Amino acid sequence: MRIVAADTGGALLTEDYEPVGLIATAAVLVEKPYRTATLSAVRYADPFNYDMSGRQAVRDEAYLAVELARRVKPDVIHLDSTIGGIEVRKLDEATINALTITDRGKEVWKDLAKDLQPLAKKFWEETGIEVVAIGKSSVPVRIAEIYSGIYTAKWAIEHARENGRVIVGLPRYMKVEIRQGKIYGESLDPREGALFGEIEADTEGIGWELYPNPLVRRYMVLEVWRE
Amino acid sequence: MRIVAADTGGALLTEDYEPVGLIATAAVLVEKPYRTATLSAVRYADPFNYDMSGRQAVRDEAYLAVELARRVKPDVIHLDSTIGGIEVRKLDEATINALTITDRGKEVWKDLAKDLQPLAKKFWEETGIEVVAIGKSSVPVRIAEIYSGIYTAKWAIEHARENGRVIVGLPRYMKVEIRQGKIYGESLDPREGALFGEIEADTEGIGWELYPNPLVRRYMVLEVWRE
Amino acid sequence: MRIVAADTGGALLTEDYEPVGLIATAAVLVEKPYRTATLSAVRYADPFNYDMSGRQAVRDEAYLAVELARRVKPDVIHLDSTIGGIEVRKLDEATINALTITDRGKEVWKDLAKDLQPLAKKFWEETGIEVVAIGKSSVPVRIAEIYSGIYTAKWAIEHARENGRVIVGLPRYMKVEIRQGKIYGESLDPREGALFGEIEADTEGIGWELYPNPLVRRYMVLEVWRE
Repeated sequence: MRIVAADTGGALLTEDYEPVGLIATAAVLVEKPYRTATLSAVRYADPFNYDMSGRQAVRDEAYLAVELARRVKPDVIHLDSTIGGIEVRKLDEATINALTITDRGKEVWKDLAKDLQPLAKKFWEETGIEVVAIGKSSVPVRIAEIYSGIYTAKWAIEHARENGRVIVGLPRYMKVEIRQGKIYGESLDPREGALFGEIEADTEGIGWELYPNPLVRRYMVLEVWRE
Repeated sequence: MRIVAADTGGALLTEDYEPVGLIATAAVLVEKPYRTATLSAVRYADPFNYDMSGRQAVRDEAYLAVELARRVKPDVIHLDSTIGGIEVRKLDEATINALTITDRGKEVWKDLAKDLQPLAKKFWEETGIEVVAIGKSSVPVRIAEIYSGIYTAKWAIEHARENGRVIVGLPRYMKVEIRQGKIYGESLDPREGALFGEIEADTEGIGWELYPNPLVRRYMVLEVWRE
Repeated sequence: MRIVAADTGGALLTEDYEPVGLIATAAVLVEKPYRTATLSAVRYADPFNYDMSGRQAVRDEAYLAVELARRVKPDVIHLDSTIGGIEVRKLDEATINALTITDRGKEVWKDLAKDLQPLAKKFWEETGIEVVAIGKSSVPVRIAEIYSGIYTAKWAIEHARENGRVIVGLPRYMKVEIRQGKIYGESLDPREGALFGEIEADTEGIGWELYPNPLVRRYMVLEVWRE
């Protein structure tokens, strides 16, 4: 099975570990044995001007996933939204009202569906590939989350080169290592079966430190500075 | 403390990782230091004809556990059903109605109790050993779950010998290794304190691969084929 | 950031692993990189006469944390009570009623606030340091929990010296090792990012064994005896 998935993660933090905004949406192509990505793509947000309502993230993920899927023609696209694995092209108002989610969630999805339902329908008509809102159950979505953390580390390196020093928060229970010419990341939850990722990056002249976010258990903080 | 527990797990999967039916009910005798089984027994179901309502599993577990307990005389029997550690021999209609579970759960238990309450009562009268519905809190129940995964791997080997190739899903966050003459399994959750199991098996002429189920995070898939 | 936190944990157990009462309240000073304590303090309870309602624990934690904070002047004090990170000095009746917790929880906090609100207010007026009820989200609270387990092992050693043998239960998913002249403890959850602790202790002439509590998954039992 060849699956494209997308997720958004990584946050710019203040010195007091307060989140300013999210940083990276990653899309990945995942193939058997489903432990890492064969291919990945990123779209960076502007963490200094971020809509924290969650709508920007889902929209960015859908567009980036469809863009990657157009190139690699997977069997299915997984989005990180837990509305029961429903096909996004079928999300009309009646279907959303029938979902077992909160009223607030229904309003958000009615708004999102205005863009995403036509996007998914058009893509399905052209390619036969479904976009499903499967959420946390999907391993490719988790791999996309790990890549969003790895790309967040890349963003942090570039930001530190320009500004001297930066603190970012990684997605849930994952770590990164900045190595010679590349950034490696992996899940800290062994129950997931050893999920990991790696991208190339210019890592010259950079110092870094990784440690637990004292205010949010199971989340790691990455500090990066120019040496 | 000597505890007998039983649990059902392992599923035959389609090529698309959809579950067809459950495979193995395992009963175990667990003794201090409570990390593995001193003794285990299995009853295989027919995954091609499986009642997925959950009733078949609990019934099979109770009968297999009592059968093993008759031989090894433990202090107590643990069943994987989270109804508050109640003694099964006391499960009359009034007691079930008073449980803090869903109405659907009450109907299931009223049905199950028809067989299991007399079974537990008779066994207690003969031996003084209680059958308690303790559920996920019990370590022996988790060890039984791990053995159900190990026996599922054994079933997969035999099925692959006859049919060439098979895909099974293991119980939650556990892995197996098919070794020379035996099958080893262990929990992937280190918080459980290193729970594991092992059985003897004819593993000649068999190839295998273990990887994350892409559709169900924290569950592993085992593929077995004839070489 | 320098954080003082406190938590209570470790329980005296019967031979059947039933809890008798809690043993140790630990306060810790945690500094960057937030993996262990720079300093720790303990107050032992009498497990044979323990108020299991949870009120004794929160009260002991607040007093011990303020005592340690008076010496080390942290930026903030974290208490293990999940009422949304609210400042304890602001806990008047109207604020408690507005919390999204159970009615039972509100009654407990109205009672607790009688002592703790003036304590936190006075400490804040004198030092500018806030006491916040942040709960499980705080890494320093988890480190305090790990130290409560380490001090529980110390209590067990002393109790075994006098009484021959003792069984204690550790806080959730952690282990301890009794080494030459010290007790080491660490989290069994790798998602937490390698949290640990260590204290000095007279460990001469003591035997010990650590294993899973068969009745409570993810909790370890420590047996200690005089050799």
